[in-house]
Amino acid sequence: MAPCGEKSEGAISSIVIIIGSVSISLCSTSLYIYNYLMRLFIYFNFEAMQTEAMPLVNKFELKEDLESPFPKGVPWVRYYGTYKDLLINIIWPGKDLALGVDNVGTVSSSLVTYAAIQALKPDLIINAGTAGGLKAKGASVGDVYLASEVAFHDRRIPIPVFDLYGVGLRQACSTPNLLKELNLKTGKLSTGDSLDMTPQDESSIIANDATVKDMEGAAVAYVADLLKVPAIFVKAVTDIIDGDKPTSEEFMQNLIAVTNALGEAVTRIIDFICEKCHSEL
Amino acid sequence: MAPCGEKSEGAISSIVIIIGSVSISLCSTSLYIYNYLMRLFIYFNFEAMQTEAMPLVNKFELKEDLESPFPKGVPWVRYYGTYKDLLINIIWPGKDLALGVDNVGTVSSSLVTYAAIQALKPDLIINAGTAGGLKAKGASVGDVYLASEVAFHDRRIPIPVFDLYGVGLRQACSTPNLLKELNLKTGKLSTGDSLDMTPQDESSIIANDATVKDMEGAAVAYVADLLKVPAIFVKAVTDIIDGDKPTSEEFMQNLIAVTNALGEAVTRIIDFICEKCHSEL
Repeated sequence: MAPCGEKSEGAISSIVIIIGSVSISLCSTSLYIYNYLMRLFIYFNFEAMQTEAMPLVNKFELKEDLESPFPKGVPWVRYYGTYKDLLINIIWPGKDLALGVDNVGTVSSSLVTYAAIQALKPDLIINAGTAGGLKAKGASVGDVYLASEVAFHDRRIPIPVFDLYGVGLRQACSTPNLLKELNLKTGKLSTGDSLDMTPQDESSIIANDATVKDMEGAAVAYVADLLKVPAIFVKAVTDIIDGDKPTSEEFMQNLIAVTNALGEAVTRIIDFICEKCHSEL
Repeated sequence: MAPCGEKSEGAISSIVIIIGSVSISLCSTSLYIYNYLMRLFIYFNFEAMQTEAMPLVNKFELKEDLESPFPKGVPWVRYYGTYKDLLINIIWPGKDLALGVDNVGTVSSSLVTYAAIQALKPDLIINAGTAGGLKAKGASVGDVYLASEVAFHDRRIPIPVFDLYGVGLRQACSTPNLLKELNLKTGKLSTGDSLDMTPQDESSIIANDATVKDMEGAAVAYVADLLKVPAIFVKAVTDIIDGDKPTSEEFMQNLIAVTNALGEAVTRIIDFICEKCHSEL
């Protein structure tokens, strides 16, 4: 990742927020879990369709870009607007054109990040989304984490040096003042393309020393690093992946509260970033 | 995937060949397997560095593009040249800038495919590489397959519709005349980011009805489909993933022969494509 001071010593003038999706552990495919996941995704799809419900779009009075900067036919959506002196872009990966479900995972998020950086030349990437948390590492539902580093847990290439490539460990942009001022928790983030957690995934998550697990972060970090744009990762814990499962009612209540907490945290981060240069973060 | 006849009814005038990397099954991390994989990758890295050794670059007298069409700083390399009326582009994903190993896997190949389509607007994508083969499905070392369809085997999202998104099944561009004329085998291709094969991966590979396994195909297919460019997948079998392992000497002999067979097959495919339109493939 580009060090925060490398890009420019002027104030940050443009950011891109890549919206991630929910990640959750599926320990079994029992009807119970299946049921609450279905409800979860119906909620998310509903929310995604309802721009009114997107707290960041509302808060900063962003508009949808009807002349998309992306290639014709791709489902990626840009919302944008100016807040103080900061150009805010929110990129939502949209829905799969054939299946109608939200685009999730590392391939989609890497493409969206690449295309957004190429089109919008931001000074900073913020990858914001929900995540599973590890109780053993101190995570609780509702916590909002600013990841210190990110890595993959499902790219096993057990050959010297290629193993490190597979893990793809990258440091997030260092933001000590932001962390202190906003009183966010910090921990390591581990990324994989599956909703469940196999024994091999679990070993890798533990080897990554991860506190939170998502489906996009390490791919966003790879692209940001490749194109030398600093990136930070804001992940709100919707569920505990190494503990007891809540009832579906509890889960839905959690989810709404956690989504609001994420929106609030990103709002405070944007407020903090305004009129600051990278080295002040 | 765009049907082969959709793009244009004129002759195909420009192709992009995305070079894939080796994929092999690692059933254990025994010193023996470790040893031959090390040698395998040393061979591949050596070959990648030695342009003289690249049969396609030599055969078609391609030149490296020193004014890369890609963003500054990315390691992707383009070789190009004209053969009869066809503009041939070979894109090699290059080496990881920090670690020095070849860029492999779905994130890298999806980015390279996206950037190549944006920059070069090809009429056809050819994803060419080596693969593991399943003996139970009739694969033998040295076979060259033209994949009929491609899917992921390591993106498990067990929720209705999202499960299909994870599998990401896509048809290759239909090429019945090419298949018949060149006497290539056909079978289904399954893609994942790990070199090994966990029980969950194996179940998904079987569910995908796959004959060959690689680390890029389904990601290339996703991007080609997104941007409506027809794509074909040419995969040469270097090893059998559901059978006895060869000695390291046998494996190296196989690998050299198989790499040559892959180069020869792609050469014949290019010869066949020349001066034809999509519907004649």
